[in-house]
Amino acid sequence: MALRVGVVGGGQLARMMIAPAVELGLDLRVLAEEERMAASLAATEVGDYRDADTVLAFAKEVDVVTFDHEHVPQDVLAVLVDAGIAVHPGPDALAVAQDKLVMRARLAELGMPQPDWAAVTGPDELQAFLDAHGGRAVVKTPRGGYDGKGVRVVGAATEADDWFAALAEDARGGALLVEELVDFSRELAQQVARRPSGEIAVYPVVETIQRDGVCAEVLAPAPKASERLLEVAARIGVEIAQGLGVTGMLAVELFETTDERLLVNELAMRPHNSGHWTQDGAVTSQFEQHLRAVLDLPLGDSSPSAPWSVMVNVLGGPEHDSLDDRFAAAMAECPDAKIHTYGKAPRPGRKVGHVNVAGDDLDDVVYRARAAASFFLD
Amino acid sequence: MALRVGVVGGGQLARMMIAPAVELGLDLRVLAEEERMAASLAATEVGDYRDADTVLAFAKEVDVVTFDHEHVPQDVLAVLVDAGIAVHPGPDALAVAQDKLVMRARLAELGMPQPDWAAVTGPDELQAFLDAHGGRAVVKTPRGGYDGKGVRVVGAATEADDWFAALAEDARGGALLVEELVDFSRELAQQVARRPSGEIAVYPVVETIQRDGVCAEVLAPAPKASERLLEVAARIGVEIAQGLGVTGMLAVELFETTDERLLVNELAMRPHNSGHWTQDGAVTSQFEQHLRAVLDLPLGDSSPSAPWSVMVNVLGGPEHDSLDDRFAAAMAECPDAKIHTYGKAPRPGRKVGHVNVAGDDLDDVVYRARAAASFFLD
Repeated sequence: MALRVGVVGGGQLARMMIAPAVELGLDLRVLAEEERMAASLAATEVGDYRDADTVLAFAKEVDVVTFDHEHVPQDVLAVLVDAGIAVHPGPDALAVAQDKLVMRARLAELGMPQPDWAAVTGPDELQAFLDAHGGRAVVKTPRGGYDGKGVRVVGAATEADDWFAALAEDARGGALLVEELVDFSRELAQQVARRPSGEIAVYPVVETIQRDGVCAEVLAPAPKASERLLEVAARIGVEIAQGLGVTGMLAVELFETTDERLLVNELAMRPHNSGHWTQDGAVTSQFEQHLRAVLDLPLGDSSPSAPWSVMVNVLGGPEHDSLDDRFAAAMAECPDAKIHTYGKAPRPGRKVGHVNVAGDDLDDVVYRARAAASFFLD
Repeated sequence: MALRVGVVGGGQLARMMIAPAVELGLDLRVLAEEERMAASLAATEVGDYRDADTVLAFAKEVDVVTFDHEHVPQDVLAVLVDAGIAVHPGPDALAVAQDKLVMRARLAELGMPQPDWAAVTGPDELQAFLDAHGGRAVVKTPRGGYDGKGVRVVGAATEADDWFAALAEDARGGALLVEELVDFSRELAQQVARRPSGEIAVYPVVETIQRDGVCAEVLAPAPKASERLLEVAARIGVEIAQGLGVTGMLAVELFETTDERLLVNELAMRPHNSGHWTQDGAVTSQFEQHLRAVLDLPLGDSSPSAPWSVMVNVLGGPEHDSLDDRFAAAMAECPDAKIHTYGKAPRPGRKVGHVNVAGDDLDDVVYRARAAASFFLD
């Protein structure tokens, strides 16, 4: 009987596991939030991932549970573990990805380089941090943020008053995370995969280009990366994966500072936007690698299959009634562009697909990837 | 709304269309012969492809009908066309792939190089052909053969007596095909894709290695192929696609003779075993290309993405209770091998999967592909 992988969440990350699951002969099952989501082809159930009974019933029919996102509550994860179900990544690792304050504290314990940070419970503590860091800092809500949401650059403690007020009403109470505003020259991302039995595969560090807090482009490997940079980034990825006991794919978002240090920005314990290039530019895509890793199968070769790969995200815009309309034009002009769609209704700013191009010359690859993606812009 | 492609037949070729359909956001629907076939993930209906009502009902819910195999009867195809349904490849082209005598006659009309051949209705005619061709020849049943079935090398007319007897009982009557025994140095395959509107994409000619009449390995591009060989093979592919009005993928199986001529052996109007390497070794796989072509979308780049690719078929053997058992070993030893499984119960000699390896050095690529495939042998 085929090995059964259960994915909680029916978004595009689950969708992009379908192709490697078919290739490897795995039985991929998805617990989707609603009908007609990105991964609907593999959806075997629709239900609420916050409901323990729902998730447990789904989990009992698979060999391992993994995730399209990091939002499954710890009490639900605990029910799965108590029932003897293999969960990868596990609750302890996911707890670090679910709460940015926990993440900062654990990374500090591991000795990882990161921005100065503090947990602040009120305006006075925030002002003290601001005063100590040049009057400006980044405030983050510890939980629930993504794509720039829950992140705010402030110059005065009063600018976070609404978030402190919300904290006061939250039964969990707690604190906000404040971080120094890092003087970075660019953003990078390091991906590694780790099996429960310990094997690790390391992808080359990539450059990520953000627009409005959302990943817009990825250049792989990171251009002009020195051997030292590649090694330091890889070591950070490996040490975090091992230190936190991450299983499956781990993405470490990094700042490269103007004084050539690497600082950890965020973590993601699943396939990640920064690794979509691997679908068409690496021997083993991050989606295949994640499936191998969570099943504790030997990992695939994470080498690039071309000297350069570029991924450009396609965002929905107000005029996008249908992506299909743009298809023929993009395909005709860019026969070497690999177009990936998510089957999602386009809404302004929503990621609805991406384009990968691989080749020998970076400038040419960037040009061609942007050209193909441009057909999906207004 | 997503474009809907209906595939008649639920085998591995339909299965391998799932990945590119997901990427391109197409709604792939499969009319499968039975439950739990290779393409079951995309199966929306189970029914008999020889029943016009069944196929018509399936076809009315899609934008184009295409095929996993070439066995849909002409009267069923005619019903679809009469109902105004887009069918690619169309009935006229498929008629050529369905009957080897029709194929030989049409290729002769197109002036394509092929072995000497004749339609023989009885032992006397067969003996006359044998006498004129050194006493040995290949006899083929015109319809229904595949993987070496319906093909027999004979040295005397009596060796085809059973087939002549079967002919006499067949309401369609007809003849057997006899072909000269070609003195070939190797077998090649040329693939092209053609859209209804005329655009053609040409893959490099590949070498196919057969064992017991079944494709065992493919080397892409064909090693030691001269520019002239590449050009002649490409021209044969293009001229057959245009001459027969093929839409979708066309594979032309070729003999390369010891005196360096190319002769057409067989045709297939669908993705073909000789093109499985394109999944991991070309910018656009034959499965994505077939979907683009039958939808009359612009074709993708058919260039190789690596200097060399090798595909090795995995055949079921008597000891194969489960392919999964072999997986971990193959994955551990060959992290760069791309393993493709068909979700089929292993039976002796049945194709149940294949392995692709791509790289810079042919000998190394061959070695690694065979090494990975060897884990699935007894």
